[in-house]
Amino acid sequence: MLDQGLLNQLQNRFGDRFSTGKSVCEQHGTGESWVELKAPEAVVWIQSTEEAVELVKLCAEYQVPITPYGAGTSLEGHVQALKGGICVDLSQMDQVIAVNNQDMDCVVQPGVTRKQLNQHLNETGLFFPVDPGADASIGGMVSTRASGTNAVRYGTMKDNVLNVTAVLADGRVIKTAQRARKSSAGYDLTRLFVGSEGTLGLITEVTLKLHPIPEATSAARCNFPSVDEAVQAVIQVIQCGIPMARIELLDELSIKAINGYSKMTLPEQPTLFLEFHGSQQAVTEQAEWVASLVSENGGGDFVWAVQTEDRTRIWEARHNAYYASVALRPGCKGWSTDVCVPISALADCIRETQQDLSGSFLMAPIVGHVGDGNFHVLFLIDPDKSEEIEEAYRLNGRMVERALKLGGTCTGEHGIGVGKLKYLRQELGDCVDVMQSIKLALDPNQLFNPGKTIWG
Amino acid sequence: MLDQGLLNQLQNRFGDRFSTGKSVCEQHGTGESWVELKAPEAVVWIQSTEEAVELVKLCAEYQVPITPYGAGTSLEGHVQALKGGICVDLSQMDQVIAVNNQDMDCVVQPGVTRKQLNQHLNETGLFFPVDPGADASIGGMVSTRASGTNAVRYGTMKDNVLNVTAVLADGRVIKTAQRARKSSAGYDLTRLFVGSEGTLGLITEVTLKLHPIPEATSAARCNFPSVDEAVQAVIQVIQCGIPMARIELLDELSIKAINGYSKMTLPEQPTLFLEFHGSQQAVTEQAEWVASLVSENGGGDFVWAVQTEDRTRIWEARHNAYYASVALRPGCKGWSTDVCVPISALADCIRETQQDLSGSFLMAPIVGHVGDGNFHVLFLIDPDKSEEIEEAYRLNGRMVERALKLGGTCTGEHGIGVGKLKYLRQELGDCVDVMQSIKLALDPNQLFNPGKTIWG
Repeated sequence: MLDQGLLNQLQNRFGDRFSTGKSVCEQHGTGESWVELKAPEAVVWIQSTEEAVELVKLCAEYQVPITPYGAGTSLEGHVQALKGGICVDLSQMDQVIAVNNQDMDCVVQPGVTRKQLNQHLNETGLFFPVDPGADASIGGMVSTRASGTNAVRYGTMKDNVLNVTAVLADGRVIKTAQRARKSSAGYDLTRLFVGSEGTLGLITEVTLKLHPIPEATSAARCNFPSVDEAVQAVIQVIQCGIPMARIELLDELSIKAINGYSKMTLPEQPTLFLEFHGSQQAVTEQAEWVASLVSENGGGDFVWAVQTEDRTRIWEARHNAYYASVALRPGCKGWSTDVCVPISALADCIRETQQDLSGSFLMAPIVGHVGDGNFHVLFLIDPDKSEEIEEAYRLNGRMVERALKLGGTCTGEHGIGVGKLKYLRQELGDCVDVMQSIKLALDPNQLFNPGKTIWG
Repeated sequence: MLDQGLLNQLQNRFGDRFSTGKSVCEQHGTGESWVELKAPEAVVWIQSTEEAVELVKLCAEYQVPITPYGAGTSLEGHVQALKGGICVDLSQMDQVIAVNNQDMDCVVQPGVTRKQLNQHLNETGLFFPVDPGADASIGGMVSTRASGTNAVRYGTMKDNVLNVTAVLADGRVIKTAQRARKSSAGYDLTRLFVGSEGTLGLITEVTLKLHPIPEATSAARCNFPSVDEAVQAVIQVIQCGIPMARIELLDELSIKAINGYSKMTLPEQPTLFLEFHGSQQAVTEQAEWVASLVSENGGGDFVWAVQTEDRTRIWEARHNAYYASVALRPGCKGWSTDVCVPISALADCIRETQQDLSGSFLMAPIVGHVGDGNFHVLFLIDPDKSEEIEEAYRLNGRMVERALKLGGTCTGEHGIGVGKLKYLRQELGDCVDVMQSIKLALDPNQLFNPGKTIWG
């Protein structure tokens, strides 16, 4: 229970931007993927770094946990208020503060979403590439070290954040780096915050790298008799060093889901969605090269999405694969999990996972950012049925163990949150103690997002 | 003075691989750039992670500082034994442990040098791109977050390290990540170690990303009437998104130095050295595009280095610019400094720096990895003349202040070491306290490389 003194102060300070309403709190206590609802006791919408400082100091005074909330698209329970306390909703910090065209970077508040940012960049000739599918907030994407469809070409958030401004547990504000493209000045606090899942401080500003919109973009899809053959083609494409912009795998079930949801008539076979960026000449050359590798691996002809609208359609369909899959089983919830392995192990990892899934009673489509060795399984569950939850846990655990055994990681891009906590030590051993000691050095009272990422 | 008990134990354990000889110690107490000699009290050559653990535990027991030493090419005094103690020479840990061709990565010991690694990779079709000029050790390059001529295309060490194995101050061994290309599993300890300059642990193994050798490589040089025009051309090339492999600036004085040292007859004008990587077609296309931008900015025609030998010659000359410049003034020492700014500020930063240098009695050529906004000044000093050292300090300080004012960093790639310590707080404010608290959490007794990076 929050102290009445704190509630009064929050009410006085934030007025309308403060709520203890049940539905508001519940809305902030879960993410997009199924996780148990753990509602905060109050929600505060802040609008500036100064307000963040005030709020953090208040919460520190009352020793109340702070859980940040961006667009609510988290997949591993990052926004669950495990120990109650205050949810800080950052959606009103949605200003693009500066676009530095010449330097190809921009400064944004954390509540800006990736689509909003790219709309804002319209006509600058630049874009922000990191694309996790959902229209996530930049703050959330920093916090989970997000990546997505074109990380294979443009990198993940790790590679595209120049600095963050963060409010620490004692109310100090730090800016982790200048705007230079590279620096060897001290420890890399920027990268420490990228992926720290709200456990080290409240991010209130982010400087991002931008990229020139390529002269030419072309997209295509092609079918394969089996997922295995599709993955083999991808491995060869990557090993040839072809600079793919996107190379995405969708299994048969995902294609079926997309056909239903996006009113498409794609052949219901394992499919690669591909995108090429570069000069007109380079794009043509890349596409010819990839087409030959696809054909050598049993893949069908490229079906091109030539017009911008066609390209948009194909990628919207891909991005809606989550919703499309959930629609396969009316009333179900989606539980999305991901692993990432060295690419030489990808075919084995996906094959064994498919075998595992085919022996289960749960429906679970597979999609993957396969160019990075990263793929997702989406369990379609009825959370009221404990046997379904147990089965998803079992399959998830086996998938993680498989990935670890193959030299991979328990999460390529969704983050640890709550859902992957039990696997972190298995993956990284004593590193977890090091992470915990860093956490304690910065947030000794564990106010920021307790129970996540590095210990439960 | 080292405790006799410790000396005896080191002697017994490491035998020939232990020395307290004056010349050996002195040889380990300075880097390639001029810094005051601060010799360690003893040097130990270790050969394995297990030996590193033993040594760290011994040093912890006796509370003796440990300074790691790789190839000795550091430029900011990283290897000075400021508080005496033991220098750990890692040059005998020079094994390439594994090359995973399919995954395009490799596992190496820290004493492997970058040239050695690339020789080892011969005939794999892969290469390791990070190239700071000197034949530095991989461990040293990790520790300083090194970059160099082709960081503009392939990134810095930050971008090319998949994980490190490190021995912590209490003797625990951690491996910071698996081999997957990306991960969202916990704090990014890999990036925390990259750039930590030996202050957080002893790095004993590194997994590196490798890259496919491009189908075609071509190199060229072209002259400009002024440094300013050369820099303007570079800015336009970068802003067009042309994927340069290398784009290096050398001022008139550097070219003069190279002509003398490498027996070349380059026109003594500001010059860009360029390299293009890609398919044959892509390389041709890129080169044509760059040539037109060069010409629009007053640059001369491209002089191509077509044969491999010609390319090697041009880049060897560039890499030897340090030694060539030192040879401009017989008997002098080189003091190399670097800053990095947002590229929009690069022309101003270099122009003002040139003006500053032209008003000084010191000779100081400029070279730069200008595609990243990064450049170097090399002060040619007689360290016995205090007025020369003072003048270099003065010019260095003004250059750093200028870079910071323009949104840049006090070091783009050399690191903080000792030489840039006084500027770190000016650049990053309270971030320095955060770095210090992380340091204390991991190395409470400050055994690892004391007096560097985050506090003096």
